[in-house]
Amino acid sequence: MESREIVHTEKAIFENGLVLESGKAIKPLEIAYETYGRLNSAGTNAVLICHALSGSANAAFWHERAKKPGWWDMYIGPGKAIDTNRYFVVCSNVIGGCYGSSGPSTINPETGREFGLDFPVVTINDMVNAQVMLMEYLGIEKWLCVIGGSMGGMQVLSWAFHHSEKTRGAIPIATTMQHTAQQIAFNAVGRQAIMRDPNWNNGNYYGKALPFQGLAVARMIGHITYLSDEAMNIKFARRLREKEAYGYDFSIDFEIESYLDYQGDSFVRRFDANSYLYLTKAIDYFEIYSEIQDSESVKAMDVDFLVLSFSSDWLYPPSQVEEIAKFLESYNKDVSYCCISSDYGHDSFLLYNESQDRLIRGFLGHLYDNV
Amino acid sequence: MESREIVHTEKAIFENGLVLESGKAIKPLEIAYETYGRLNSAGTNAVLICHALSGSANAAFWHERAKKPGWWDMYIGPGKAIDTNRYFVVCSNVIGGCYGSSGPSTINPETGREFGLDFPVVTINDMVNAQVMLMEYLGIEKWLCVIGGSMGGMQVLSWAFHHSEKTRGAIPIATTMQHTAQQIAFNAVGRQAIMRDPNWNNGNYYGKALPFQGLAVARMIGHITYLSDEAMNIKFARRLREKEAYGYDFSIDFEIESYLDYQGDSFVRRFDANSYLYLTKAIDYFEIYSEIQDSESVKAMDVDFLVLSFSSDWLYPPSQVEEIAKFLESYNKDVSYCCISSDYGHDSFLLYNESQDRLIRGFLGHLYDNV
Repeated sequence: MESREIVHTEKAIFENGLVLESGKAIKPLEIAYETYGRLNSAGTNAVLICHALSGSANAAFWHERAKKPGWWDMYIGPGKAIDTNRYFVVCSNVIGGCYGSSGPSTINPETGREFGLDFPVVTINDMVNAQVMLMEYLGIEKWLCVIGGSMGGMQVLSWAFHHSEKTRGAIPIATTMQHTAQQIAFNAVGRQAIMRDPNWNNGNYYGKALPFQGLAVARMIGHITYLSDEAMNIKFARRLREKEAYGYDFSIDFEIESYLDYQGDSFVRRFDANSYLYLTKAIDYFEIYSEIQDSESVKAMDVDFLVLSFSSDWLYPPSQVEEIAKFLESYNKDVSYCCISSDYGHDSFLLYNESQDRLIRGFLGHLYDNV
Repeated sequence: MESREIVHTEKAIFENGLVLESGKAIKPLEIAYETYGRLNSAGTNAVLICHALSGSANAAFWHERAKKPGWWDMYIGPGKAIDTNRYFVVCSNVIGGCYGSSGPSTINPETGREFGLDFPVVTINDMVNAQVMLMEYLGIEKWLCVIGGSMGGMQVLSWAFHHSEKTRGAIPIATTMQHTAQQIAFNAVGRQAIMRDPNWNNGNYYGKALPFQGLAVARMIGHITYLSDEAMNIKFARRLREKEAYGYDFSIDFEIESYLDYQGDSFVRRFDANSYLYLTKAIDYFEIYSEIQDSESVKAMDVDFLVLSFSSDWLYPPSQVEEIAKFLESYNKDVSYCCISSDYGHDSFLLYNESQDRLIRGFLGHLYDNV
């Protein structure tokens, strides 16, 4: 059931800019965003969607001439779990990204050229502070709920813990309060793959040969962590690609190799290598668990939580996601936790899943009915 | 307790060469090997050690001016688990490797230059067939036992299933009968990292700029799979490297990043990128489980097995290693299986572990006493 309604990405420009956690500033600050549905007169039906590493502001509906709808269109639309007949839905591209918000591929007004590594390093909290500015720009005082998976879930946690007065509910999905060493390691190797590509050229590659090969390798590493071993065995097993027997050479033998190659090579056509560095760094820096230890703000926080994990997610395994719920319970917060059974690994949150649909739909409805 | 005895790598040259599973041949065939201890007059005390991906024939004792002893010196030596006062121990470099046996960096006699990709693709069974030639060359009719971990364990399985008349015992450690899609995926991305390095130049890089960056990235990916999440958290957690706070740049922030960088950069000084391609391909091709289904040779096989796994190994998790033991049990073979408790992930088999020591020592002693 595709929603063929055409939507556009809008842009908000804040000339005074945003001061970041590093002390540096993005000035002016540009935020690309989309909205679906209408804000009600009481301003009580606004829902913020936070995207993951490779996502954009186009969370739902169709861009003109697009080949597919927004990345969470299966959950957002008329009558869907995040019902645009009922809710005013907002999604913005994160700062540091490459889909319209300020990032390393933005033109530096001082030089007339892309920022590259002159763009300041951003954190998850910075991304959320930019969203706070967008919220005020849109005339929203409080979100009904903030929802997101993976890096989006980290933004949800930043909203809930650092701006708890600005949201009634929070749905962090397939995410963590901070990366373990192994999780940092996967991102770090992805960054090394890019930075060791000679075309990367210390980030100054715009208008020249791009670091396609490094970015493709980084994306392939990512994809291994997004899919579960089960999912890969269901989808590919040890099947050969258009061959009856081993090729005894170094061309593609296995279907899984072909899949990863395709994922790597198609990603480089739509994503900026520097943004990959910035966003993975923001993810690795995120450590809200350390930030909020014994803080009075957690005790005072009045936000309802729905925390979701997926059984076959090995990037953020259920046990790690559940720690968020346990932490909240230790402060007597209102939290529901559910581990959804799925074979599709970390990617599960991006696919249609009836349980995820039902849980989000029910939680949002309950929040809305109790405003 | 270091064994300071100095040893040298020997070389055996077989002018008639070896015909491979692909139908191609390595001619002449060169095998680099080391031996420790003495073959007894009955020829019943010979033990073959099979090395893993980055290993060499130097399994024990010291090379002249070496900074460390052979890779399994903690288990091989006088009075050690594989007691060189009692056993005649042999270890050879695999074909396709870069430590003295025929491989892509060997000089092609027809051109006077390194083979590069003109070297034929080899399989685990080919590696073992080369070892069979070495065995005859050394005058050994039957091994007391064949022992190895990871890729070495695959060679052990090839020996046991395809040359069962040539060994009394087999100790496959932290290994599998065939790679899953995810295991192929990790190797495939490593190969892509090398092949997408412009210096790789289709394998013709000898004497020119080497594909260091690609090989370093491949090695970093490998290291993530060799260490467990637990081991990384014990060793590194989220600790910063020589910093009090985040650097807010793309230099090294975390200790785990520094560790991986070091592992990647030091590996390229000692390993050939093409050999990395050949050996990972051999590992991915290995599918002895499919080869031996319902075969009469398995029913006839008379080999005693000790199968070992490590609790925190997530590259070859205990459940997958145990499948080897279950398969053997289904044929009523003499098999002991033990999952050794260890925090160090797949790398555990390369470290000193008292349980591994005791189990290997006991199993070998029992074999020897019952010759």
